[in-house]
Amino acid sequence: MKNYTNLILAGLVIVLAAALVGVLVFVKNQPPQERATQPLIEIAQMEPDSSQWGVNFPNQYDSFLKTKTNNVDTTYAGSSQFSWLERDPRQVILFAGYPFSKDYNDDRGHANALEDVRATKRLNLDDTNPKRTPGTCYSCKSSDNPGLWTELGMEAYDKMSFNEMTPNINNAIGCSNCHDSETMRLVVTNPALKEALERQGKDWETFTRQEMRTVVCANCHVEYYFKGDGKYLTFPWDKGTKVEEMIEYYEEYGFKDWEYPDAGTPMLKAQHPEYEFFTADSTHFKAGVSCSDCHMPYVRDGAAKYSSHDVHSPLLNPEAACGQCHTDTEYVVRRVNTIQEQVATTKIATEDALVDAINAIKAAVAAGNADPALLDEARKLHREAQFMWDYISAENSTGFHNPEYALKVLADATNLARQAQMLAAQSVNDFDLLEINTYYQTPAP
Amino acid sequence: MKNYTNLILAGLVIVLAAALVGVLVFVKNQPPQERATQPLIEIAQMEPDSSQWGVNFPNQYDSFLKTKTNNVDTTYAGSSQFSWLERDPRQVILFAGYPFSKDYNDDRGHANALEDVRATKRLNLDDTNPKRTPGTCYSCKSSDNPGLWTELGMEAYDKMSFNEMTPNINNAIGCSNCHDSETMRLVVTNPALKEALERQGKDWETFTRQEMRTVVCANCHVEYYFKGDGKYLTFPWDKGTKVEEMIEYYEEYGFKDWEYPDAGTPMLKAQHPEYEFFTADSTHFKAGVSCSDCHMPYVRDGAAKYSSHDVHSPLLNPEAACGQCHTDTEYVVRRVNTIQEQVATTKIATEDALVDAINAIKAAVAAGNADPALLDEARKLHREAQFMWDYISAENSTGFHNPEYALKVLADATNLARQAQMLAAQSVNDFDLLEINTYYQTPAP
Repeated sequence: MKNYTNLILAGLVIVLAAALVGVLVFVKNQPPQERATQPLIEIAQMEPDSSQWGVNFPNQYDSFLKTKTNNVDTTYAGSSQFSWLERDPRQVILFAGYPFSKDYNDDRGHANALEDVRATKRLNLDDTNPKRTPGTCYSCKSSDNPGLWTELGMEAYDKMSFNEMTPNINNAIGCSNCHDSETMRLVVTNPALKEALERQGKDWETFTRQEMRTVVCANCHVEYYFKGDGKYLTFPWDKGTKVEEMIEYYEEYGFKDWEYPDAGTPMLKAQHPEYEFFTADSTHFKAGVSCSDCHMPYVRDGAAKYSSHDVHSPLLNPEAACGQCHTDTEYVVRRVNTIQEQVATTKIATEDALVDAINAIKAAVAAGNADPALLDEARKLHREAQFMWDYISAENSTGFHNPEYALKVLADATNLARQAQMLAAQSVNDFDLLEINTYYQTPAP
Repeated sequence: MKNYTNLILAGLVIVLAAALVGVLVFVKNQPPQERATQPLIEIAQMEPDSSQWGVNFPNQYDSFLKTKTNNVDTTYAGSSQFSWLERDPRQVILFAGYPFSKDYNDDRGHANALEDVRATKRLNLDDTNPKRTPGTCYSCKSSDNPGLWTELGMEAYDKMSFNEMTPNINNAIGCSNCHDSETMRLVVTNPALKEALERQGKDWETFTRQEMRTVVCANCHVEYYFKGDGKYLTFPWDKGTKVEEMIEYYEEYGFKDWEYPDAGTPMLKAQHPEYEFFTADSTHFKAGVSCSDCHMPYVRDGAAKYSSHDVHSPLLNPEAACGQCHTDTEYVVRRVNTIQEQVATTKIATEDALVDAINAIKAAVAAGNADPALLDEARKLHREAQFMWDYISAENSTGFHNPEYALKVLADATNLARQAQMLAAQSVNDFDLLEINTYYQTPAP
């Protein structure tokens, strides 16, 4: 019996040893865990040429290329280059004295960003002019930026003029603006975003993947200003990202984008504060939805499932965009239209109140004998009301990203604009300044 | 062979005939299809005593009884009898000259309706006074009404004074206000609702069950007025149920609830337009949700599942009320609070603008030399702005039933109130009337 037992034990040892070797060989032959598939080519860090990335990620790249041509309009906005100044002539008045009154076209898709920024009539390419367009204006237009910011530093980048920067910029927005080329991880590439988050005590490196699927959009889709003579790209977030908190910041810093002609109001132009507006307690944000969930929904190419990089309004592909969560997409689209109609109509009422305020302030200045304290208070309210309106108007969703907040901000803006008009009339004791107008009978959509 | 065939055929006939008889006997012995369970007692048509109905429907009745005592507050309203005039003293000014400035308590649950209407200081029980409270005020307070309307007709009912009607009214709101006693079907019992729907070309008898689960609430939760000397209960819906459509109706009919003292504005008091506000394209209404889905959710008593008749704010039982559709009720409750905070804050801004307008109009009247056309235009805007505000303020959801519409209406109301103030100042060329005040530093919740 003893011999048999030994034989069995020896056999077991051999079998177990062979199994162990087999498992170890199997494990060794597995691909590295970080990478599910082997890349076809190596992509350099911050590679500006998106077609290189496209070799490894053809579906994402092909869908990204569609942003070049797939520029379809929705009811209230969309991706064609229609002129806001033609569609809503009140905006010619509201931006008087500022380049946006000359040329204000709606944005096309990402792949057109470089072509469009170079074509806008808002540029001042005379480098001898103190109002020359700074290189900073390229910050959101090119996949060359992550490399240039690393090479030059943002301070040196922003000190160059648009003209001087032009030879360095060869690619529109692309992969390198949001991805790390080695791991494809989402990354904050814009130093201004990194710094604004840091001043808020936040470190983007600690964010979850889902948080990053919103924060990378803030590389560009934010309110910003050019700080000081060096035109240093800065986000006004130190007091928070709600509109009243950004106004408080600007008041303290004493910043103005331009002075309203014949009125003397120190004006602020809102840029495209999608990130701030969406994250201001909107229902989708609070439900954990990211920008990418709706604007870059999962789509299929045969058996492959990938995040579409053809970024545009979800109204153009609601089944993919809304249908991941909502079962009845027809209902959802009708709902979006109802909300946008309410916001668009309320926005026009605010514009009419602003134009009345502007006319009153201009008339008070022209009279030459205005009470300076009352006039200054009127200007302050005009400045705040117009920035609040612009925060909703320049934001690319006709209020949908945060409907209740949009309507509350517009309600407040109208109230302040009417008060500005009243103060201007008081400053010169002229009742003609209280005239109430509806400027264009056909409301802008 | 032939005999066998016949035998087989005969046998088949007998078997089939027996089977047929069996099936017929089975069918005959089935209970009637309309009634799943046999009632314990017969309930008379329009029986006002809800405890009778409770014999057959103990779960529904027991939950209804809870509306007597289960009167809990939410952040912005709820079911206790707190005073709106104490909570938000602006309303004392807004309702000056009208009984609501003396006594304006929040509603308690259905079972208290009769006790509360008899206790309010708004009543005028002097039958010799032309401003005596009409019997019409009982229309939404008692389960005796369906029987009385059938017996007397609404015209005769409404011609009686409150005092005269009192002996006929012995029960608070109850089963008969919404149910047919034989089939338990939901029914329109208020003739004013039936007539208003008819004038819109609608026949409630053709409505689906789910539509009825909203429409029965409109037996009471609506805007209404007392038409003519007969105080005939009338819903101002002929041009539609949105606030601007009801204003258009009232302008055409020339109705006023009272005249604002020392201002001369013909005022309108909004009642409780929950039905109109909710059905004005709100997201829940458009998604097919009825009032009952949220306010009378399905609950369980052991194995029995029934619709709770303890009607109150869904914020007090969100798991049952919201959880039938929404998975994350904690999120939903936070969301409701965010929306209500935005509406409540915007509402206060509208109130401040209205008080400024009132003060300006009063001062213009007191001056004695106002331009009558400008002053009348100011009054018109005051009337409209205050009704728009009241449509949101008197509505029992702090805007939640239709958030975007609430904020849009408040934005418009503030704009009109400021314009009214400006016109009043212009009417007497007095700039002091343009003063902008914030009346109470602590905003009302």
